[in-house]
Amino acid sequence: MKNFNFYAPTQVVFGRDAENELASLVKKYGGTKVLVHYGGQSAIKSGLMAKVEKQLSDAGISYVKLGGVVPNPRLSLVRKGIELCKAEGIDFLLAVGGGSVIDSCKAISSGRFFDGDVWDLYLHKTFATEYLPIGCILTIPAAGSEMSNGSVITNDEVDGWLKKDYCVDEFRCKFAIMNPELTFTLPAWQTACGITDMMMHTMERYFSKDDDMETTDAIAESILRTCMTEGHKVMENPTDYISRANIMWAGSVAHNDITGCGTTGDWATHNIEHELSGMFDVSHGAGLAAVWGSWARYSREENMPRFARFARNVMGIDTTGMSDIEAAEAGIQAMERFFSSIGMPTNIHTLVGKEISDAEIEEMADKCTTGDTQTIGGLKILKKADIIKIYQMAK
Amino acid sequence: MKNFNFYAPTQVVFGRDAENELASLVKKYGGTKVLVHYGGQSAIKSGLMAKVEKQLSDAGISYVKLGGVVPNPRLSLVRKGIELCKAEGIDFLLAVGGGSVIDSCKAISSGRFFDGDVWDLYLHKTFATEYLPIGCILTIPAAGSEMSNGSVITNDEVDGWLKKDYCVDEFRCKFAIMNPELTFTLPAWQTACGITDMMMHTMERYFSKDDDMETTDAIAESILRTCMTEGHKVMENPTDYISRANIMWAGSVAHNDITGCGTTGDWATHNIEHELSGMFDVSHGAGLAAVWGSWARYSREENMPRFARFARNVMGIDTTGMSDIEAAEAGIQAMERFFSSIGMPTNIHTLVGKEISDAEIEEMADKCTTGDTQTIGGLKILKKADIIKIYQMAK
Repeated sequence: MKNFNFYAPTQVVFGRDAENELASLVKKYGGTKVLVHYGGQSAIKSGLMAKVEKQLSDAGISYVKLGGVVPNPRLSLVRKGIELCKAEGIDFLLAVGGGSVIDSCKAISSGRFFDGDVWDLYLHKTFATEYLPIGCILTIPAAGSEMSNGSVITNDEVDGWLKKDYCVDEFRCKFAIMNPELTFTLPAWQTACGITDMMMHTMERYFSKDDDMETTDAIAESILRTCMTEGHKVMENPTDYISRANIMWAGSVAHNDITGCGTTGDWATHNIEHELSGMFDVSHGAGLAAVWGSWARYSREENMPRFARFARNVMGIDTTGMSDIEAAEAGIQAMERFFSSIGMPTNIHTLVGKEISDAEIEEMADKCTTGDTQTIGGLKILKKADIIKIYQMAK
Repeated sequence: MKNFNFYAPTQVVFGRDAENELASLVKKYGGTKVLVHYGGQSAIKSGLMAKVEKQLSDAGISYVKLGGVVPNPRLSLVRKGIELCKAEGIDFLLAVGGGSVIDSCKAISSGRFFDGDVWDLYLHKTFATEYLPIGCILTIPAAGSEMSNGSVITNDEVDGWLKKDYCVDEFRCKFAIMNPELTFTLPAWQTACGITDMMMHTMERYFSKDDDMETTDAIAESILRTCMTEGHKVMENPTDYISRANIMWAGSVAHNDITGCGTTGDWATHNIEHELSGMFDVSHGAGLAAVWGSWARYSREENMPRFARFARNVMGIDTTGMSDIEAAEAGIQAMERFFSSIGMPTNIHTLVGKEISDAEIEEMADKCTTGDTQTIGGLKILKKADIIKIYQMAK
């Protein structure tokens, strides 16, 4: 078992009417002037924004609003947010939405007191030393950003765009308000993308060369099974509180690091997908489903018994009499069948609606490895040439 | 699924040589003058205390020491610790040991700035508003106190003694250093008591009337299975790093509340046991094993399908063709066989080495319910008369 740090300080307030705790939580964590950051119309239409504003006003907490966050949140809006925070003397950031809004808040948090260009943080050129505190009201269970230390931002100021992450413990939300009822109106596509994303957060920690962290493995397997059983229920009945609640909580647990304690993990699928959604602006979850099978078939030789175990313990396959490679393949196929069953694509053609070109693949693989100067992956170490092969397999 | 709060802010530093992070962690969390609290000779003999002192000295952090914590930690030593903190201007508490040392630190933390009698906090008469921060180096995986909000103290100043708990979020450790190698020398008895205690922390959250928190149930079941498989390994080979590490981490996860999100739980077994260890000064884990089966048989009628599920998903019993009550009984018996297999008693006679008297049972049941004025339990609500029956069944 690898040495590890586990740090998940976010106070989670979960359940019906949890958003009524907003004002007291903002005060508890020192907020007196709040930037309320959100996406498009859905938080307004649902009445959630009105509730938020009333709560803050009634408690005497002043606030300004900044909407317009889109999936694959943009650097240009982050810059606006930073300027707004400086101009208004903001001391607390409140994200109302899903992972994109939270990630955008995190970027604003890191840029607020930083002297240089905030994008340099995402290029891992340097670190910020001071951050604004963040809280969130989660409306889309998927990214796990409500408890994670990571933020992924798309630079829309460069040709072909660029999607990069920055991870620091200061990005962990002070509080996360989660009311499953707020997710009842999520469209099926977004629900399925979310289920895929949370499963992948677990699987990218699970598939590693390590085989000695039974406590973590058992938790990871339980989360994956739950995502599938409760996921099917929620796809069938979007207003079923219980399965919405189970999925919502699974999304946080999947990415608060408890599914990865003592493992090295392998985040190649996320890296490979980030280039896809960076280039084609597709949904992150769907992109993950489109490439995972190809990544798995390309990388499994590094730890075939683990893929066989996955087939048995997660996909529930009776692998008696199968070789490890047969079991592994059966597990991967079963996972792809699950993705299909919730409407997710399992190849890039279906994902982007056209055949991608060799030039596009070349460009994505190049960006993914910063011009073949870096590798990705932990189970199998992947260079640019490997990534090209995986994109080709997933075409 | 019940509404819940989840808050587990402790920074866990886990693995080989983790104790080398001590000085930087104390500094990070503001410690400049530390009370190092510990138990008996084992931390001195193992060289851990010397390492601790050298680390603190080298970093220029001053400290005083207070040893002598015993299992079922005593109020009288807590009082000494509070006086020492006041006299020495202590601003940080470091527990070096297991749950008893951490619980004693927590009590000192709560009493340091409290004007009244610290025991009144444990009698739930009032709350403290200011606390000293606590960090720990864990040497006994069992109580889960390194991530929990609870502290249990035995009042040795009254006739027959009294064991009570006090739970506040301020009791959550700032950091927990966990090096599985520090547990290699734990005797088999203490190892087994620890495994039992962590399993019971999971089971007391698991057995409830609720059946709608699949995410939590699946995590709880995975922890219980891991405790049994890794527990057998560690009993056979006490210096096996991997199983020691899995057990150590399972002990924290079992009690950081993640196994209880959305459930009501039932802590009757802990309450019933506290009276046993309060009166006979027996090991807490062993006491739990001695009474759990009787509690389960007495209470299961309130949710028989859950006990049947436990038999299938935790104990791995094929319950095909069994009624729920047959499956429940098979699961309880299997659990008792596991306790026996690691050397734990499954009745009170074996636990205390004599037959306990009706008068002793009467006294324990009376204390447990504060003179029949309070009830315990969540699955089945138990009055004094019920508790007497359970003690009789467990005799």
